[in-house]
Amino acid sequence: MTERKNIAIMGAGLVGSLLSLYLAKRGHKVDLYERRPDLRKTVVDGGRSINLALSDRGWRALRGIGVEEEVRKVAVPMQGRMMHDEQGQLTFQPYGKEGQAIYSVSRSGLNATLMNFAEPNPNVTYHFSKQALDVDLRTNEVLLRDITSGQTETVQPDLLFGADGAYSVVRGAMQKTERFNYQQSYLEYGYKELTIPATADGGWAIEKNALHIWPRGNYMMIALPNIDGSFTCTLFFPYEGERSFASIQNEADLLAFFNNVFPDAVPLMPELAQEYFAHPIGSLVTIKCFPWSYEGRALLIGDACHAVVPFYGQGMNAGFEDITILDQMLETFEGEDWEELFHRFERTRKPNADAIADLAVMNFIEMRDKVADPRFLLRKKIEARISEQYPGKWLTLYSMVTFTDLPYSYALETGKVQDKIMKQVMRHIKNVDDFQKPEVQALLEKQLLKKDKLRR
Amino acid sequence: MTERKNIAIMGAGLVGSLLSLYLAKRGHKVDLYERRPDLRKTVVDGGRSINLALSDRGWRALRGIGVEEEVRKVAVPMQGRMMHDEQGQLTFQPYGKEGQAIYSVSRSGLNATLMNFAEPNPNVTYHFSKQALDVDLRTNEVLLRDITSGQTETVQPDLLFGADGAYSVVRGAMQKTERFNYQQSYLEYGYKELTIPATADGGWAIEKNALHIWPRGNYMMIALPNIDGSFTCTLFFPYEGERSFASIQNEADLLAFFNNVFPDAVPLMPELAQEYFAHPIGSLVTIKCFPWSYEGRALLIGDACHAVVPFYGQGMNAGFEDITILDQMLETFEGEDWEELFHRFERTRKPNADAIADLAVMNFIEMRDKVADPRFLLRKKIEARISEQYPGKWLTLYSMVTFTDLPYSYALETGKVQDKIMKQVMRHIKNVDDFQKPEVQALLEKQLLKKDKLRR
Repeated sequence: MTERKNIAIMGAGLVGSLLSLYLAKRGHKVDLYERRPDLRKTVVDGGRSINLALSDRGWRALRGIGVEEEVRKVAVPMQGRMMHDEQGQLTFQPYGKEGQAIYSVSRSGLNATLMNFAEPNPNVTYHFSKQALDVDLRTNEVLLRDITSGQTETVQPDLLFGADGAYSVVRGAMQKTERFNYQQSYLEYGYKELTIPATADGGWAIEKNALHIWPRGNYMMIALPNIDGSFTCTLFFPYEGERSFASIQNEADLLAFFNNVFPDAVPLMPELAQEYFAHPIGSLVTIKCFPWSYEGRALLIGDACHAVVPFYGQGMNAGFEDITILDQMLETFEGEDWEELFHRFERTRKPNADAIADLAVMNFIEMRDKVADPRFLLRKKIEARISEQYPGKWLTLYSMVTFTDLPYSYALETGKVQDKIMKQVMRHIKNVDDFQKPEVQALLEKQLLKKDKLRR
Repeated sequence: MTERKNIAIMGAGLVGSLLSLYLAKRGHKVDLYERRPDLRKTVVDGGRSINLALSDRGWRALRGIGVEEEVRKVAVPMQGRMMHDEQGQLTFQPYGKEGQAIYSVSRSGLNATLMNFAEPNPNVTYHFSKQALDVDLRTNEVLLRDITSGQTETVQPDLLFGADGAYSVVRGAMQKTERFNYQQSYLEYGYKELTIPATADGGWAIEKNALHIWPRGNYMMIALPNIDGSFTCTLFFPYEGERSFASIQNEADLLAFFNNVFPDAVPLMPELAQEYFAHPIGSLVTIKCFPWSYEGRALLIGDACHAVVPFYGQGMNAGFEDITILDQMLETFEGEDWEELFHRFERTRKPNADAIADLAVMNFIEMRDKVADPRFLLRKKIEARISEQYPGKWLTLYSMVTFTDLPYSYALETGKVQDKIMKQVMRHIKNVDDFQKPEVQALLEKQLLKKDKLRR
């Protein structure tokens, strides 16, 4: 058992709140400082939320601290993608095997659940409306401003965790230190939050247990179910160009565009124009940096050190997995060498954070473009058949990322190998039945043997 | 002719000073603001200089404004690399054809020459010891602090150029704007400036007209000649590890190490220990960002938007080429749409800035490791033969970068194609004479035909 520490977590979002529980469990005194007011008491939604998709890595971290059942109550399972074409025709593609699903949760709903679970813990104290103005990494002093009173105070924890998201103030302080590697890259796309409300009888207007996609080549809309019968929709759209945020200037432009490309969605969106022009355009950033810690006193975690674009549904899951990994390291941590512990953590997680960042960017192309291609869907079916035929020897990339806790970097590398094999296989495939053709089976046998050798 | 503008250039270094001349030539009023005092009057060298290698792109920009001859006086030609092995044995490898060379200049010497040339220009005014504290991009106001008096003032130019280097304050302001892409990556290597002084009779202690390299695998020392008979040496060394800055703690460590690995250099470096422990360790950063401009009022140029590591000797040359390209665009610029001009500039230069950044990192491995390998040197000889045999059809990557103004991105791509061909060719080569073997000649004919087709 290590000495009880005074720990400050900057940011009481999803990762900060869950982390506080894990640290409190080990006997540490944890204070959470959050810039925003308590979201359970104030509506702070700026019209910029994207629903989250909880998958295995996330559940594992929730289970590890006993909050899984509480979260199940606010989560809606989605068994696959439901594609809507321009005529409103639907195609369903399951994410995994029978019974596998990802779970739609609203950011605020999940955050409130975690806060309610953490707040009674005597080791955990929430401080809302406290903005971190400055962090002195040499002394671990944080200058805080109370948003309500305007007063400032300084806290000086033993350990400082930066769970303060993509625009982290703690990381900002690290960026001013020597030899800090840092990268922020924006997509040329923004997003807009829209809504499909619940039906008059409180039900779901479209299939409840699916992630809906309107793939349109270089842009798309998605919709994720909420427990109240509504769907949170997100339009991912270029900033500039022929069809873009810039090209839609007024309600007439908007309706002409939506009626043309999302005709089946328009009748379900009574507030479309009002929401479109009231909500801000969100930006899509990937953040990579290294190191994640400073001299054994400060550590970044979650989006603060690895913000990713939302297209693999893994941002929160990766942040939660950080906590699982850190907790595993704490489990066997005897000494007082937090610097070495933090180094071990950042070295372990960095390649995986990089991998999921790259996978998330790649998946945007898949979602907005490829899922509308019959050949792509046929390939997915063939791959599912391979996976069935060779249990344990072939997991799809999506399954490795979503339904296992294999390292993201391993999933990415294995996915590349499998992609090459699939390209060869698909040369022989015109329809699903071709999977049984002797040349396909022979090719697979040979390639799987090779792949197996690679792994050893 | 465009309207006369009040232009402020932040930074009176190499790029800022040269740029001032080009802008003044077009009738604009140019003020240069430099944080440091006038280097012609004060010694400001912090023991962290690396000599610069002027090559064709740089000369072209100097020639374009009539300062070439002045600079020739302070430049020492280097016709090739002189490799020093651990026994002090020398190997020479020419950079290009007979008569081709790169030119060693000291940063301060070249800067002083440019300042002396620019200062009498009535359109140019230098302001030294003026530190930019803050830039407001919406108004183009710059808050300046006079380092000597401590007083602050605000200037508000029509156009603001950020030629203020890798740690640019102008770029710092852009980093706070929406959707600014930014990356800073440090090598795990630092550098230390050392000196080989002139001999007693004022001559050069080692071959004057060469860039000396002591390649040692994962580290190296280089030496570039100065006009006064001395050489500026730079040790590029890992921060951590068995042989690293961290492993050398005292004079005994230092001398044991130098005597072991640079035995021929030690007798030429009488101030070795004094300099080693007095000089700071410099860091090696690559900076990439985009965009480079803000609303047609502010533009980054040189290191401020594309700092590179020094291993291709192209950092200054790339910055000077920025000026050549901008001047070409200004030549045909009739209107007042500076925003469009800046956009054209940044779109044109960005792929080339990225290419030279990547080439510079790649060349570090070549310099510190490969140049010590006889196979590598044989390959260079064979490539020179190919280049002779097929004039105009084969320029080495190094020649394209150093002795032409072909876009860096073109050089990088062509270099990759040629690298593949060379790998095939070298399978048939045991010595230089093998170049004449029929199978080598046949292979070359075939591959060059293919390469030619690619280009069309």
